[in-house]
Amino acid sequence: MNKKHKKYYDRLKRLKRKQLYYFVVGFVDGEGCFSVSMTKQKYNYKSLEWKWILNPVFQVYQHEDNIEILELLRDYVFKTGRIHRKSSPYHVFTYSIENHRTLNEKIIPFFRKYRLATKDENFEKFAEIINRIVNKEHLSINGFKQIVDIAFTMNAHGKQRKYSKEYIFETLPRQFKNS
Amino acid sequence: MNKKHKKYYDRLKRLKRKQLYYFVVGFVDGEGCFSVSMTKQKYNYKSLEWKWILNPVFQVYQHEDNIEILELLRDYVFKTGRIHRKSSPYHVFTYSIENHRTLNEKIIPFFRKYRLATKDENFEKFAEIINRIVNKEHLSINGFKQIVDIAFTMNAHGKQRKYSKEYIFETLPRQFKNS
Repeated sequence: MNKKHKKYYDRLKRLKRKQLYYFVVGFVDGEGCFSVSMTKQKYNYKSLEWKWILNPVFQVYQHEDNIEILELLRDYVFKTGRIHRKSSPYHVFTYSIENHRTLNEKIIPFFRKYRLATKDENFEKFAEIINRIVNKEHLSINGFKQIVDIAFTMNAHGKQRKYSKEYIFETLPRQFKNS
Repeated sequence: MNKKHKKYYDRLKRLKRKQLYYFVVGFVDGEGCFSVSMTKQKYNYKSLEWKWILNPVFQVYQHEDNIEILELLRDYVFKTGRIHRKSSPYHVFTYSIENHRTLNEKIIPFFRKYRLATKDENFEKFAEIINRIVNKEHLSINGFKQIVDIAFTMNAHGKQRKYSKEYIFETLPRQFKNS
């Protein structure tokens, strides 16, 4: 780590825990994202069959020059998660947490206690989805659809989504045919 | 203001002052910018003569959906500055403070007390430039050049600048010929 950067992070670490947490929640309000994407997972390579998978993820973005703040989040604030380079844009790194249990037990309680501002409404929808997944509601087709409905109201109403809700709903019954 | 948004901002306002300030500094560390641009100012419309002007500005960006957080900064935290829509991208608003005295007396002391992380190094260069301007160092050509030198080391070393340092330095003597 470059010396100047080290100074800033040492200073953050010397803050009172609560003050650091308010800094973190302000930072995440700017650079963070709570999202639930839907992806196709192949489960039979012979027949090329696939099913829909829900992927809730908490992410924080940062230019590679300031990767230390992501390390601070990982090593000092949340003590979990991973940091990786985005494929595009190349100079951006992402700190992300995808594990349902970690999201449920660590991340959601944190942002319930230290509230976001611009992203609080989105966060609450995310927390609602995690709660439904933890309660296994996504294992029925109706439960799954309700989660998709919520997910599509998040992050500018799913404008950047790869798949339309109509397509997901149309193809969803196949994976529930045995249940 | 939409009702849900109002709830979030009321909640921020109920935080202890120091906690709110740490939230703000975290938010600015993500969404804020300290910059010093150089623009040409026409001072004689007949002869089309112009001179270089230094424009230090503190800005915070936000999508129009969350403009309330900029209003919170303007009305409740810094009690100064203005909010305007960017020409591009159109859906982004900017909260900005350009007045040298306000920058010197309000903004710099605030971020000296509540320290930034990723943007602290940049902020310190900005503070150094404001200090030189307050001391009228930009009124001599050497003082002006030194400020330009510092400004070009800010924000990814001036990659997005409209004018090159060479061009500024080459054309600068004209406006100091009488001093």
